[in-house]
Order: sequence, then C-alpha cells, then structure tokens
Amino acid sequence: MSIKITGTGIYLPPYIEESKETAKLINKSEDWIISKTGVIERRKSDIDVDKMGAIAAEQALEGNNPPDLIINASGVPKQTIPDTSVFFQKELGLKNIPCFSIHGTCLSFLIALNNANALIQSNTYNKILIISADRGTIGRNPKEPESAALLGDGAAAVLVEKEKNNYNNFHYWKMNTWSDGAELTEVRGGGTSKHPQNPNTKPEDNLFSMDGPSIYKSARKKAYKMVLETFKNVEFEKSNVSWIIPHQASEKAVTAYHEYGGFEPNKIINIVNKTGNCVAASMPMAFVTAVHDDRIKQGDLLYFIGTGAGLSMACALVSY
Amino acid sequence: MSIKITGTGIYLPPYIEESKETAKLINKSEDWIISKTGVIERRKSDIDVDKMGAIAAEQALEGNNPPDLIINASGVPKQTIPDTSVFFQKELGLKNIPCFSIHGTCLSFLIALNNANALIQSNTYNKILIISADRGTIGRNPKEPESAALLGDGAAAVLVEKEKNNYNNFHYWKMNTWSDGAELTEVRGGGTSKHPQNPNTKPEDNLFSMDGPSIYKSARKKAYKMVLETFKNVEFEKSNVSWIIPHQASEKAVTAYHEYGGFEPNKIINIVNKTGNCVAASMPMAFVTAVHDDRIKQGDLLYFIGTGAGLSMACALVSY
Repeated sequence: MSIKITGTGIYLPPYIEESKETAKLINKSEDWIISKTGVIERRKSDIDVDKMGAIAAEQALEGNNPPDLIINASGVPKQTIPDTSVFFQKELGLKNIPCFSIHGTCLSFLIALNNANALIQSNTYNKILIISADRGTIGRNPKEPESAALLGDGAAAVLVEKEKNNYNNFHYWKMNTWSDGAELTEVRGGGTSKHPQNPNTKPEDNLFSMDGPSIYKSARKKAYKMVLETFKNVEFEKSNVSWIIPHQASEKAVTAYHEYGGFEPNKIINIVNKTGNCVAASMPMAFVTAVHDDRIKQGDLLYFIGTGAGLSMACALVSY
Repeated sequence: MSIKITGTGIYLPPYIEESKETAKLINKSEDWIISKTGVIERRKSDIDVDKMGAIAAEQALEGNNPPDLIINASGVPKQTIPDTSVFFQKELGLKNIPCFSIHGTCLSFLIALNNANALIQSNTYNKILIISADRGTIGRNPKEPESAALLGDGAAAVLVEKEKNNYNNFHYWKMNTWSDGAELTEVRGGGTSKHPQNPNTKPEDNLFSMDGPSIYKSARKKAYKMVLETFKNVEFEKSNVSWIIPHQASEKAVTAYHEYGGFEPNKIINIVNKTGNCVAASMPMAFVTAVHDDRIKQGDLLYFIGTGAGLSMACALVSY
C-alpha cells in the first residue's frame, strides 16, 4: 500500500516587495541583496497564516472530497495555542475533521509528508491535507541584513491519498538532526525560554536569527552525503530523478544541488529569486509551482531534499 | 506488526507549590481553588522544558538502546525555532538522531503515540522516544484565577518499539476537532497573529486563557459519545479496560469518566490533585505514575482519552 498526491494548491500574496524596497529596510543596496541571497523579489502578506494556508488548501481540495485529517506543517504558528491546524479547519469550514501540527521548521512539510505516508500505510487515515503557511517577513531583523533579505511570505497545500493501484510511490525517506547546530537558525522568543512577558527578553529574540554562511558550509557536505546514501539504498539511479525539489533556503543553497549534488540545473526547481525563503512553505511552494506550470507530470520521480533549523536535513524520493 | 511501550520516565520538579501559596497569586482562597479545580498542590520548575523533558527521557531510556527518532509532544515550546525536540536531543547527547515536534496542545502525547504506531507499522522507524514537557506556571494569568489555579509543571517520556511477537497492542484510535471551540483555550501570543513585537499585543495575550466551565460542558457530551463509539468498534467490552488514563484537565474533568463515562472510579488514574493540569505532559505523567507505582502491569488494557485546545478530543485503546 502506498500514497498518491492528488491535489496541490499555492497562495502567493499579491504584494510584491522588490529587493530595492527591502534594501531600505536593512540599509543595504539592491545589488548587495541580490548578490548575497539571489532574491530579486518576495511576497509580503497582509493576511495571516491561517487565511493564507486556507486559500492554498481550497485549491488543493478543488474537485476532491474533504480530507479525513488536516496537518499543519508550518515554521511559525499563528499563535501558541491552539496550534494553527485548528485555524485552517475553521477557515476551510471543514468541521469535525481531526487536525494537529508537525513542526520541524523548514522541513515541516517533508516530515508531514512522511508521517502522512505512515498514517495511510497503517490504515489510520485515507486522505490527508498538508498545509504549510509562513509569514517570515513579520520576523525580519533589520540588524541581520542577510536573513532579513531572504525571508518572504507564502503558502502551499498538498492532498495525499491512498494509492488505489498497487504502485509504491514513496520510495525512500531519511532524516538527521545535529543539535550542535541549534543556534544556527533561531527565533529564541515566543516560548518558555525567552517568554514575551519576561523582562529579560530582548526585541531581537523575537526575530529570525540565521547564520546563513555557517549553515551553508555545514549543510553542503551533509547534503552531498545524503544524496550518495539515497542512491545506494534505492533501485533508482540519480539520472532517473525527474525533478529535484530543494528547500529554497537561498540561491546558493538551491544551486548547490547542481554544483555539489551533481544534478542537472534544469532539473532543479528554483523559485527563490521570485519568492525568497518562505520557511516551511518554500519546499511545497516550489513543488506546486512546477506542477501548475506543467513541468512536473504524472509518473515523474521527485527528489525532495532540504535543511531545517536544528540543524536537520531530510530527503524523500516520491513518484508523482 | 504492532508497537510495545518499553520505557517510561517522569520528572516532577522538586518545588511543591501548595494551593495556599497559589491563592495569594490569584487573590482567592485555598478553599476556592480546591473546590473549583481539585488541585491541592502543583510543581513549579526552575529549569526549562528541555532539561525537564531530558530527565524524564533518561529514565525512559535506562537499560535501553538509543531511539531512532525523538518526537517532542509538548504544549508550549522552549522557543519558536528550532522546535523543542532539537533541545531534547542536545540535552540527551543523542547526536544525529532525527527529531521533530507534534503539537495538538494537551493531546500532543496521544497524537504522537498514534503517529509513532504508524511510523513503526510502516517500517519507517523501530524505536521512538516521545517526550512531553510543559511549564504552564510561566503562562498563568492572575486575572483568570481558575485556569491559573489549575496549571502546573512536569514532564514525562515514553519509549515505543516494534512488538517482536505478533501481538497487536494498538487497538483503536479516534480524534475529532471542532474549531468552533478554538477560543475556549488560547495563548493568543507568541506567533504571527499577536507577535511579541506587535505594539497591539497585550500582556494577557501571552498568558493562558481557558474557559474551563464551557469546555467541560461541551466536552462531557463529546467524551460520552467517543466512549460509546470506541466500544462499538473494538472486540473489547468497556469492562475489559484495566485503566482509564485521562488528560488531567481538572478534578471534575477526570472524575467525569466515572460519573458520565461509566468507568469504575478506582480504574481512573487521577493525579490532578498533586500535579494540577500540566498541559501536554499531564496524560503521560498520569500513565507513567501508575506504571511506576505498579498499578499498571504488563498486558493491561489502557484507555487513553482527553481533550485539547481546538477543541479536540482523542482516545486510544492500547495494551501495555
């Protein structure tokens, strides 16, 4: 028994913030932003994550019956309690459907996809709606120009169902976490450690802190090893992969799958120039973009791979 | 293929806050607290959730090999990013083991247990460590005396493995979410909606808000229906259940499983008088307490059931 992706949706907030506008916020030039991050423009949302995710989810559900489970797979929640999945359910009017959240920062979508596969394989659920919605622009720290230049807003949703034919579409899953890299990407506030009501919590504790160059340096080697290990463990060759769908961490991080990963550049889905790094929403947004512009076709072999705060790294090999 | 619970751990912070001390904080009497909530004392932690959870996890891992996955199943995180599982890994020194979080507020543990069952059944992982650690006392709102009187701190951990014999130990799972009850339990701050840096965010937005009487009224009927439905769907009778392990929402909520659920009072694990409502940690703390004092024995049939913010309700029937 396996899974099949049967619905996809995306929400791009209408407001486009070009890098010349972002430049003013962080006191850098447009050229500096583009050369450091590769981000030419990013979206900025004036509606909150629950509404953003619900618009993407409605698209994914079009022509489909309602799901029997909703998983929120975002990086930053709408509020601490309840978890964001509840607000997605409310926006979608899908009363009585169970819902919860999976959080692994930028890898939340991929972890949710793997959990959805397990929940369907174990006959626990039949049709799972995964929604990732992030509004990173709210957490930009102007004193950290590189990460502030990277962040953008967006949402995507994917519907996963039991595969009716006997195909196996979920071929490989691997995840690792190296907690010695926990400080490389942080929003230190919002929880019990630097609680909003704690007088010692500083404003920057509530904003994104990301050491991009150190993550890149560490992740490049880890990604290289993960790719090697994947193709030692599956019946496919690297050349069988139709599309690489990386987390859109930065232009450099995306193109590294060509330079160091050895994949052809035209097989790598790259939306980072137009959307920035949308935290957990980036990977499903890249995927849905390429489905909707007809690059990704039924039967294609997809290789999802990326990093997340932790430092974590994960990949999945999935037939579409 | 099924799962088996092979390790259990608990952390009770050493400081006991008796209700006469809590009474001063909320400007009520000790008698008022005890009559409204049933909580005689609760623990108050001076270490953060990552350290609390790691102490419980070390106990659960004693004499066992390391897990191949760590799931954080807490109600409130240490910080927004990375998710708390990373900090558990760090405290435990379990390098390189994948980890992520599942969030369904007070039901996080039960949802994680169901996901662990699916991940093991689907051969994705073999040995999963679930940790719930909550420090609700940090989020107490003195202007909401009832919920402030209820909250306590604590942590518990459970190790789940593949069952080597061919027994099926995970008999039933059901969850529902009714998002029209989303406002009944909230911490509105800490995310994108009422961001800590937003000047419109009020101090009370960062604290627990819980309408206990309305939740109780709504949940009582829902719990009654869920119990009925459970025993229509399994081969067991209600009388076969060895132990009911409810979320320790309040004394009234726990004893309702006798008054309205029809279970014998001496079969209901009740720790709320001594620990208060420890959010997601409450249910596994009740379970681990009864394992460690030898009430729960191998082969016992356990019925986990409870409510969570959402409003959600879930139950699982599991052999120990």
